[in-house]
Amino acid sequence: MTTLSPTPRTTVRRGRNRAVADRDALHALLADGLVAHLGVVVGDHPVVLPTAYAVDLDGPDDGGTLYVHGSVAARWLGAATGTTVCVTVTELDGLVLARSGFHHSMNYRSAVVVGQARLVTDDAERVRALDAIVDHLAPGRSATLRPASRKELAATAVLAVPLREASMKARAGGPVDEPGDVAAGGWAGHVPVRRVLDPAVTADDAAGPVPAHVRRPRQVPLPVG
Amino acid sequence: MTTLSPTPRTTVRRGRNRAVADRDALHALLADGLVAHLGVVVGDHPVVLPTAYAVDLDGPDDGGTLYVHGSVAARWLGAATGTTVCVTVTELDGLVLARSGFHHSMNYRSAVVVGQARLVTDDAERVRALDAIVDHLAPGRSATLRPASRKELAATAVLAVPLREASMKARAGGPVDEPGDVAAGGWAGHVPVRRVLDPAVTADDAAGPVPAHVRRPRQVPLPVG
Repeated sequence: MTTLSPTPRTTVRRGRNRAVADRDALHALLADGLVAHLGVVVGDHPVVLPTAYAVDLDGPDDGGTLYVHGSVAARWLGAATGTTVCVTVTELDGLVLARSGFHHSMNYRSAVVVGQARLVTDDAERVRALDAIVDHLAPGRSATLRPASRKELAATAVLAVPLREASMKARAGGPVDEPGDVAAGGWAGHVPVRRVLDPAVTADDAAGPVPAHVRRPRQVPLPVG
Repeated sequence: MTTLSPTPRTTVRRGRNRAVADRDALHALLADGLVAHLGVVVGDHPVVLPTAYAVDLDGPDDGGTLYVHGSVAARWLGAATGTTVCVTVTELDGLVLARSGFHHSMNYRSAVVVGQARLVTDDAERVRALDAIVDHLAPGRSATLRPASRKELAATAVLAVPLREASMKARAGGPVDEPGDVAAGGWAGHVPVRRVLDPAVTADDAAGPVPAHVRRPRQVPLPVG
């Protein structure tokens, strides 16, 4: 179990009891998540965009590499390249309903990665990253597809963010109430939240059967308590 | 049906066919979502943090008000106050598995709100906002709780972001493949993704029954096609 390397900009300042200094938990969350929220400064203000992503723990960057991609014409992509960005992956695990408004909370796992976005120019790394993004949705699928065309590759930019500077927070379980509120009675508890992947729907212009790589479950056990 | 008021900084530049110029769809997504990702510039780079939120369409800001809250000691809160922030709410609705890597996608609804964060100083508005954040998790719950104590209010900061500058994107349905890839055969389709709220778990130090306001379903029909 290796620990994270928090720097001043990823050190969890509030709620230190919820910080998880464990790279295995970070990697498990990044494997479990499907959508990342990428923060980029565009002009004079931050923009936060949802995006697919993939992780290559053996990637060329310190601590491994997180990849996102986009159209070469996307404005955020130009703004992000070479600047420090923030990539956050959050999985909501529950609603925490306490006896006081103050102690209401959520159960969740969240990773915050801060790093300089590198435009991937090496073709082999670019193809590997794009395959990894497909395989993050359906592991093994990229090997069943034709290679990307030259035109498709020319239209697609890939950004790499080092995983070195990362922090993770997680909360699980029921509410923690004030003793006076517990004594006063009243209901409290939590509502578990899950993400469910339903059976695949075959496209109108395609025929079954659904390949095995599409049918695997995506739910990963909660790594921390 | 009123349309959104996109400005240069929230106009959807890529994938215009996925922009939804419909405030009803925006409001439905904000009602359906549970977690927002707040982007703030802290020092020299953006930070993206997951957070609970609530919306008051009759709030004092242009287009209505989105509220987030945090500890008065949180570093991001001081950095956000008075600056332009970005609040993004995303619901993942499916994985789109095409015949080419290039046409892989996700089904989702996502709202991007950009606005100047106002520290709420009026006590009545602050209490209303905090109640709304509780009620966003479990509608009607705030009325069943004791009022916040002076100490709790002093520890909690509330930020308001105007809803005026907002853009929304959504995608639904199956993959759109190149004709040549369709002709070549091979499976394609999409995997619906849902968020499920399981039955509430009563806290160890509490007794049932679970109140009716906790048991309502949270799933809202997909507002756009």
